[in-house]
Amino acid sequence: MREHMRLYLVADPAFAGTRRLPDIVAAAVRGGVTMVQLRDKGDHVGRFVQEARAVRQVLEGTGVPLIINDRVDVAHAIGADGVHLGQRDLPVRDARRLLGREAIIGLSIEQAAQLAHADLAAVDYLGAGPVFATATKPDAAPPLGLDGLAAIRTACGLPVVAIGGLSLDNAAGVIAAGADGIAVVSAVMAAHDVTHAAAQLRARIGG
Amino acid sequence: MREHMRLYLVADPAFAGTRRLPDIVAAAVRGGVTMVQLRDKGDHVGRFVQEARAVRQVLEGTGVPLIINDRVDVAHAIGADGVHLGQRDLPVRDARRLLGREAIIGLSIEQAAQLAHADLAAVDYLGAGPVFATATKPDAAPPLGLDGLAAIRTACGLPVVAIGGLSLDNAAGVIAAGADGIAVVSAVMAAHDVTHAAAQLRARIGG
Repeated sequence: MREHMRLYLVADPAFAGTRRLPDIVAAAVRGGVTMVQLRDKGDHVGRFVQEARAVRQVLEGTGVPLIINDRVDVAHAIGADGVHLGQRDLPVRDARRLLGREAIIGLSIEQAAQLAHADLAAVDYLGAGPVFATATKPDAAPPLGLDGLAAIRTACGLPVVAIGGLSLDNAAGVIAAGADGIAVVSAVMAAHDVTHAAAQLRARIGG
Repeated sequence: MREHMRLYLVADPAFAGTRRLPDIVAAAVRGGVTMVQLRDKGDHVGRFVQEARAVRQVLEGTGVPLIINDRVDVAHAIGADGVHLGQRDLPVRDARRLLGREAIIGLSIEQAAQLAHADLAAVDYLGAGPVFATATKPDAAPPLGLDGLAAIRTACGLPVVAIGGLSLDNAAGVIAAGADGIAVVSAVMAAHDVTHAAAQLRARIGG
């Protein structure tokens, strides 16, 4: 599990521009992305399902797991490797019951105090953030900072992927604070050369 | 199935005001509601799950099925009787695979032409509408009118519940046009006396 956390791409079609999302994902994996979360906040679930199936095809045989944000039904329908759930999403225990023991279930943690209320036995990894302020998720909680990230790391043995405002400049510091990896959206999605951007990040993180 | 279509309540917490949604649903069932669809377009899925469990409790032993709008995962998690899916929701075939043979699966049809593209073998009933213009769903398709409703009725043998702008004034005409029943939102949800409003509608429809 922990090794899949290294460079975690949040693939959001809102950042795809005129490019095809599966192509962006394929390019990112060539650059060293170790896990892909597909996130679609639009209201066209049928399209999300089609898109998710196309991304799953691209990832087949690469060893890179595909995780669906929020929609446990979409994850189940397309045979994804798991789901990523926020604090307001389907409870992790219900997701585990639907998806079974083998599924990867990630949970967003916005502050260490949330760990006390979380059903961590149903969770495989934590997404901790936002570490820094971010423009890509305007409704995000206040930034954790590196101290807040370290507090989550200390409080819980689960693999932790840091998210929120991460880039080449601050990636190494986040790893030093204890994260197993970094999750990026625009740092890869919005790059002119997606493969190069992913490879640079991967080199900066190591692992 | 068809008898459950008679008076179909779309219970949407956006119309609950200061009242508890399960209380409104219980009052509506006392008035003769035959099926309840829970619809929550908010972004707090965890709360939706709690709410759905509370409504399920209220319906237990009444014989009135509980259907969840859009979220197949929520339906599965709370043990609802089925789901209602729109044209942009999870494909009905995927929903059938997730929920199994016994689940009730409804599909929204906005015009008869959509029947040709629908996987009707996976569908138990159709929600046809909006029959009339409605303020409760601002993103709805153009109204079908009674002729459009009759065209859907003729084209397909599945039970049809009519939706969109339905009230005491036009309910009987909709049944005359071939609908097995009517679905209402504000006509019951926004009523001062929910039980009375439901009973009046039920009397108008007959059945």
